[in-house]
Amino acid sequence: MKKLINRPEDVVVDSLRGFAAAHADLVRVSLDPAYVVRSDAPVSGKVALVSGGGSGHEPMHVGFVGRGMLDAACPGAVFTSPTPDQILEATRAAVSGAGVLYLVKNYTGDVMNFDMAAELAMSEGIDVQSVVISDDVAVQDSLYTAGRRGVGATVLAEKLCGAAAEQGSSLSQLADLCRRINDQARSMGMALTSCTVPHVGKPTFDLPEDQMEIGIGIHGEPGRRRVALAPAHDIVDLLLSPIVEDLPFKDGDSVLAFVDGLGGTPLLELYLVYGELEASCRKRGIRIERNLIGSFVTSLEMAGCAITLLKVDAGLLDLWDAPVLTPALRKGL
Amino acid sequence: MKKLINRPEDVVVDSLRGFAAAHADLVRVSLDPAYVVRSDAPVSGKVALVSGGGSGHEPMHVGFVGRGMLDAACPGAVFTSPTPDQILEATRAAVSGAGVLYLVKNYTGDVMNFDMAAELAMSEGIDVQSVVISDDVAVQDSLYTAGRRGVGATVLAEKLCGAAAEQGSSLSQLADLCRRINDQARSMGMALTSCTVPHVGKPTFDLPEDQMEIGIGIHGEPGRRRVALAPAHDIVDLLLSPIVEDLPFKDGDSVLAFVDGLGGTPLLELYLVYGELEASCRKRGIRIERNLIGSFVTSLEMAGCAITLLKVDAGLLDLWDAPVLTPALRKGL
Repeated sequence: MKKLINRPEDVVVDSLRGFAAAHADLVRVSLDPAYVVRSDAPVSGKVALVSGGGSGHEPMHVGFVGRGMLDAACPGAVFTSPTPDQILEATRAAVSGAGVLYLVKNYTGDVMNFDMAAELAMSEGIDVQSVVISDDVAVQDSLYTAGRRGVGATVLAEKLCGAAAEQGSSLSQLADLCRRINDQARSMGMALTSCTVPHVGKPTFDLPEDQMEIGIGIHGEPGRRRVALAPAHDIVDLLLSPIVEDLPFKDGDSVLAFVDGLGGTPLLELYLVYGELEASCRKRGIRIERNLIGSFVTSLEMAGCAITLLKVDAGLLDLWDAPVLTPALRKGL
Repeated sequence: MKKLINRPEDVVVDSLRGFAAAHADLVRVSLDPAYVVRSDAPVSGKVALVSGGGSGHEPMHVGFVGRGMLDAACPGAVFTSPTPDQILEATRAAVSGAGVLYLVKNYTGDVMNFDMAAELAMSEGIDVQSVVISDDVAVQDSLYTAGRRGVGATVLAEKLCGAAAEQGSSLSQLADLCRRINDQARSMGMALTSCTVPHVGKPTFDLPEDQMEIGIGIHGEPGRRRVALAPAHDIVDLLLSPIVEDLPFKDGDSVLAFVDGLGGTPLLELYLVYGELEASCRKRGIRIERNLIGSFVTSLEMAGCAITLLKVDAGLLDLWDAPVLTPALRKGL
C-alpha cells in the first residue's frame, strides 16, 4: 500500500488537522467528534444545511462547507458512516433556529445514522427534514445500499440548495428543492483501477489490466459488468446511454453536466471525457447549459470517472450561478 | 495502459476540444496550432503573459488562462515543449502593444523554443522579455534540464505576475517581479508511483512496492534517491529540509506554502501532508500566511506530492489575494 499517510488509523484526523490549518478563514473544525462548520455558524435566520458520509470521497463533503453551500459536514471513518452523535454535534453547531436540512446519500448506514440524529435533534426542539440522494442508475441494490446509490447529484444538490438557503428559502422549500434536484439528476461511473482502504491495506477488488468496471460504486462496490477496456468515446456512451434513457432526458432538454474524477484520474483525461460527453449530448439534442469538471466525489485513489446530468431550468441556473465560497468550490467571492 | 483516452496520438487535441467546450466563457482555443487565450484578448494597454510547456501537467498551463493570470498558454505534445511557431501564434493572439512576458520553466526544449519564439516576435516589433523558472532544489542537472528544473513556483509566478499585469505593471516591472518570485521560491517533489506517457504505453520507471523516489521530476526524471516508504511525517521532512536550507528560509519568515498533488494523489492525502508541513514550519518559526493545496502541476496519473515555499511580503500577499478568474483558479470573480 503506497499512501501519503502516517498510521492508517489516524488518516482521517491527520487529514482534518491539515484541512483545519489550511482553511481557518472559512471553517471551524472539531476533531472529536469530527465535524466541520462554516466559520460564521450559526447564521441567524438561515436554514442550516448539514451533510456527511464516510471519508475517502474528498473534497465531498468537508470541502463544500462555507457561504452558499453547506453549514456543516461530518466525516466518518474511511468509507464508514458518521455516527448519530457526531451528526447531532454538527447540527447543534450549525443550527440557528430556522431548522436543519440533512442531505443524505443513499447508503444504509448513512440513512440510518442521519435518521437517528434527526430524532435526537428533534427531541431537543430542532426542526429537521432529511432528503435522501439516489441518482446512480447503475444498480438497484448493492453491498451498501437498498435502492439506488447517491453519488454526483449530492454535490449539485449541496450547491443549489446552499444558494437557495442563502437567499432565504424555508426548510420545507429547501426539502422540496432538494427532492426535485434528486428527481431530475442521473449518474453513472466506471473504474479503471481499484482503491485501497488504508486500514485494509490491499485493493478492494482486482481488475485485470485489460478490463474496466462499468457502474462502479464509490466504495468500490460492484457495478453492472466488467468489459474490455475501450476508447473514451465508447466509455462515455456506456455511461451516458443508461443515464439518458432512465429519466429520460429528451431532445431539447437543458442540463448541467458534471464529469467527476474518482481521485486518481488526471484532469487531461477528464477534459477529454467532457469533450466526448459534450459531442454526444449535442447529437441527442441535449443542451449543456453549465458544466462542472474535476475530482469532487472521489474514491480514494481510484482511477475512473462518473457522469452526472441534471435537468435544469432558469431557476436552477440562477442558483448554480450564485456566489459560493468553500475550500473546494468558489465563485464570485 | 489504462487511460480514459481514444488514440494515444490524439490525447492532447481531444482533451483541448473538451477544455474549449467547457470554458468558452473564459477562453478561446485554437487546436492547430494549439494554444489557449483569454476570451477578451488582446487586453488593451496590458502586458500579455504567455506560458506553455508539455501537456500532461494539467491544469498547468491552460487552466491558468484568464483574467488576473495568463493571457495565453501553449500546450505541447505530452511532456514535449511547444514549438516556436506555436508560441509565436499564441503571442500574436495575446499581445496588445504593451509587450509580452514569457514565463518559461527551465527545461532545455522549453528554453530553446521560447527563445526562438521571442526572436521571431521581436522581428515583428513585439517587445518580449523572458523569465526562466528554476525552483526545484532536488537536482542540479537532469535528463531534460541544464540547471534546476522549474516546477511549483511557476503557478505562483503566473498568479502573482498576472495580478500585477492586471494592475498596470510595465513589462520590465513584471520581469523583475517574476525573477524575484523565482529567487524567493524553492520546491521539491516525491513519487510513490510512475506515470505512463500515452504514446509510450508503459510506465516511465519502475518503483518497487516498498520504495519511493525523493526529488522526482515532473516528467518522471530521476530524483535524488530512492528510499524505503515512510510515514507522511518523515516524507514532509525529507522534502522540507532541503527547501528550507537552500534559500535559506529563516525563523520569522513569512511564506506562501503550496502542496501539490502529481495527478494520482487523493485530496485526503494532500491535506494530511499540509498538516505535517504546517506543524513543521511552525516548529521552525516559519509563518505560513497563505496556502494552496491541490493538483495544479501534475505528471499525468503519478501518485506523489511536491512542496513549494515562497517567501512573501505584504506586496506579494496583496497580489496573491487579487481577483482571478481562470478554469483552475478562481477568487473574487
